[in-house]
Amino acid sequence: MNFYEKLDHITQKNKSFLCVGLDPDLKSLPEIFSGKKNPFFEFNKAIIDATADLVNAYKPQVAYYSAEGLEADLEMTFQYIQKNYPHILTILDSKRGDIDSTARQYARESFHRYQADSVTLNVYMGKDVVTPFMEYESKGLFLLCKTSNPHGGDFQDLKVGEQPLYYHLAKTVSTEWNEKKNLGLVVGGTYIDALKKIRQMDSQLPLLVPGLGAQGGDLKQILDTVKELKNKRIIVNASRSIIYAGKGADFADKSRQKALDYQSVMQTYFK
Amino acid sequence: MNFYEKLDHITQKNKSFLCVGLDPDLKSLPEIFSGKKNPFFEFNKAIIDATADLVNAYKPQVAYYSAEGLEADLEMTFQYIQKNYPHILTILDSKRGDIDSTARQYARESFHRYQADSVTLNVYMGKDVVTPFMEYESKGLFLLCKTSNPHGGDFQDLKVGEQPLYYHLAKTVSTEWNEKKNLGLVVGGTYIDALKKIRQMDSQLPLLVPGLGAQGGDLKQILDTVKELKNKRIIVNASRSIIYAGKGADFADKSRQKALDYQSVMQTYFK
Repeated sequence: MNFYEKLDHITQKNKSFLCVGLDPDLKSLPEIFSGKKNPFFEFNKAIIDATADLVNAYKPQVAYYSAEGLEADLEMTFQYIQKNYPHILTILDSKRGDIDSTARQYARESFHRYQADSVTLNVYMGKDVVTPFMEYESKGLFLLCKTSNPHGGDFQDLKVGEQPLYYHLAKTVSTEWNEKKNLGLVVGGTYIDALKKIRQMDSQLPLLVPGLGAQGGDLKQILDTVKELKNKRIIVNASRSIIYAGKGADFADKSRQKALDYQSVMQTYFK
Repeated sequence: MNFYEKLDHITQKNKSFLCVGLDPDLKSLPEIFSGKKNPFFEFNKAIIDATADLVNAYKPQVAYYSAEGLEADLEMTFQYIQKNYPHILTILDSKRGDIDSTARQYARESFHRYQADSVTLNVYMGKDVVTPFMEYESKGLFLLCKTSNPHGGDFQDLKVGEQPLYYHLAKTVSTEWNEKKNLGLVVGGTYIDALKKIRQMDSQLPLLVPGLGAQGGDLKQILDTVKELKNKRIIVNASRSIIYAGKGADFADKSRQKALDYQSVMQTYFK
């Protein structure tokens, strides 16, 4: 199964657009993980087991693992999902972007070391960033377009001719770069107008939409904006609001409850 | 010593603008490192010992280590430089860029785990990328501006009003973001006109100039372009042309010879 097929399949199966961001942080983990040898993996495992029937994707953010030297936990997390929930899409959120020879190394990191199904990329450096990744034809690439953060517009909103830079980027990806049909875009759920604009320009490209929960994005507003949802290739990410829903021994139940809150809304968009 | 002072000091001491990119690759390493436990560290150590009087900086590119799961070698490399050549500037070339909470983790990776003196950042996502790093006031931040790769211009050269995007970015950094005086720009040595344009706009910001050697940048042309070199805050990087100058048992001598070729040209720019 290629990337688009895998995404379509799990989205229909779980009637969900929900992606859980696996971004563990030693300061925020429930008490019971302190002193464990692989605290991030053990925590992720509990979250995954509690939510696997409610999501279409998991997205670990590599920074959290790299800050602590816990890349082993990240490897174990990908292996665990692949072994136990192979139908769920995995996204390595690393926002890599570099010249060809270096991008080749990042592609090996993403697809050989971690065996992720897809990865996020930053294409400020142009198409050279993407080309080595595209050789992995079954894998998906989400390119940063309009990001969810408050200062995301510093450069992304600058006008290039009539349109903002982010729109120009989306159009380039849609009309010029997607020959292998394995690209998607990252568009923050905190900028609804941008989301609408991009969906109107191309209704086919998968969208990874971060910003739900802690960052303030509104789920119904996001889903209504893309409401035709023809191909339903939408992945809406929440990290902190789900993984830190509880701090006690019942933290995984609390996470499940929060994921269920989101998924209950999402399933109404399936006929 | 802060970042600018450290850079000034080592540049004058070694009469050099040369940065060696420590980008080891299992396929390209000399034979003698195969089967070693920490092949990248052992290789780097030999290159460092052979070139330390000829450089102003070392710049490991994290992708090479991450592709192989050899982050330990990267940690050891930074420790080795810090212990044996503490006056030489280190640059973690990782081109990170993410929202505030994630950027905080990347800053910890850069400055706590690796203890780098400086880091490269990709600011497509705006100022949020930089802010958490700026809290480390003695550290340096090189922001991608005009990159050395063939497709670097796909977005960087788009006109925003009268000027290309990369120029707008440089101006924003120069006039709005550099309140802590610890920012610099990455400007590829393969685009001489851009280098000139940026140097004319701001003669103070340190420039990290990759693209020498394998990428085709010409050293004299680069140095002539910034020839007034008032504050001499220039770092010209070469990776493959130096570290793979030889493949035999005398590989380190060959690397030294290549570095010396570059530095001999550079020292003529010091009065």
